[in-house]
Amino acid sequence: MTAFVLDFDGTLVDSVYAHVAAWHGALRECGLDLAMWRIHRKIGMSGSLLMRALETELDRKLDDDLADRLKKLHGRRFAELRSSIQPFPGAQDFLNDLRNAGVRYAIATSGNLQDLQPLMDLLEIGDVPIVSQKDVPAPKPDPALFLEAAKRLGHSPGEIVVVGDSVWDMLAARRAHALGVGLLTGGYAEDELTRAGAYRVYADPAQLRRHLHEVGVQIDRKE
Amino acid sequence: MTAFVLDFDGTLVDSVYAHVAAWHGALRECGLDLAMWRIHRKIGMSGSLLMRALETELDRKLDDDLADRLKKLHGRRFAELRSSIQPFPGAQDFLNDLRNAGVRYAIATSGNLQDLQPLMDLLEIGDVPIVSQKDVPAPKPDPALFLEAAKRLGHSPGEIVVVGDSVWDMLAARRAHALGVGLLTGGYAEDELTRAGAYRVYADPAQLRRHLHEVGVQIDRKE
Repeated sequence: MTAFVLDFDGTLVDSVYAHVAAWHGALRECGLDLAMWRIHRKIGMSGSLLMRALETELDRKLDDDLADRLKKLHGRRFAELRSSIQPFPGAQDFLNDLRNAGVRYAIATSGNLQDLQPLMDLLEIGDVPIVSQKDVPAPKPDPALFLEAAKRLGHSPGEIVVVGDSVWDMLAARRAHALGVGLLTGGYAEDELTRAGAYRVYADPAQLRRHLHEVGVQIDRKE
Repeated sequence: MTAFVLDFDGTLVDSVYAHVAAWHGALRECGLDLAMWRIHRKIGMSGSLLMRALETELDRKLDDDLADRLKKLHGRRFAELRSSIQPFPGAQDFLNDLRNAGVRYAIATSGNLQDLQPLMDLLEIGDVPIVSQKDVPAPKPDPALFLEAAKRLGHSPGEIVVVGDSVWDMLAARRAHALGVGLLTGGYAEDELTRAGAYRVYADPAQLRRHLHEVGVQIDRKE
């Protein structure tokens, strides 16, 4: 029996570009310049790994004080942009289809639940496990987040389909021995997701929903 | 003798993500929702073709009044974001290298020169031909823009290296029988640019500058 572990940020709601802008603004406010495309390719990494990635890109150390300041500034700027963020087409229908078919799912996010709650309220997610970075010892692309979500669903990792929008999701899914399914919603190219291990790549939740049979889930359509 | 035709927006200055946000906001202000990643993949198309692309994505007709309103709203929002836009690392050095080596270049942009002037002022572009959409009959990926730039440089298209950041640049370069060189600065993946015809793909102007010999230009480094 297949169960789903769903990334949230950038997979169910259109938040990646707001995160890019928020990090770019936070960095600039600290006197640090980093090109938008380089920030974009890091989104989906969890906080502490993102800091290491930024250090590499900026070729300088970010001490704890500066890292904390960046995270705070990012949070504030992201909150300002939040009102423009919408769920992706098909996101709610996809969740409903899983629920109606009795397919269990969990949400697994590297984001901050406090930042994300207003966005989660845009969808009826249902009474499902929600696992966040603080529940596990190591950030994506470490498999810990997805393994914990699988455990809470009572499934072995091999029974899990991980749906995500970033290469970090696909790498973590592969390391968890789960099946990674990529969405183009994060602005990565199909080839990038495939090379990171995606079993299939769909445009968005609407397209994934119409192709659930390709990942082994049978949905009886009443429409 | 090789000469260069350089895209500006997203290739020399970090403006693509600001355009994505500006179009997204403009569409929302008109009651139209389109995911950021879908808008992102259209940036670099010129105005009229972009409108057709948006029609396809939105699956509805945008009449002239609405198209005009969208363009105005985009222009206003883009102007608000302009102060956060910087040249890419190496952009000025790249232009200086070409100039010092006696390699001629032109700027060819699908953007609006009025919107772009404040960004052009961030760089010393020099006294070179600047060709914009209004100078040619058809928008990128039609080759007209690059062909006109080649003509103004007094070069045949086959002698031209087009540097751009979008698949539309690479497609137009190919149709112009010029050599397309892609930069990752627009947020496209290497594979997307290569499949669109890029002869080589570099991260940004700084990396291109260090590899100019790969496109047949010899720069004597004094450093």
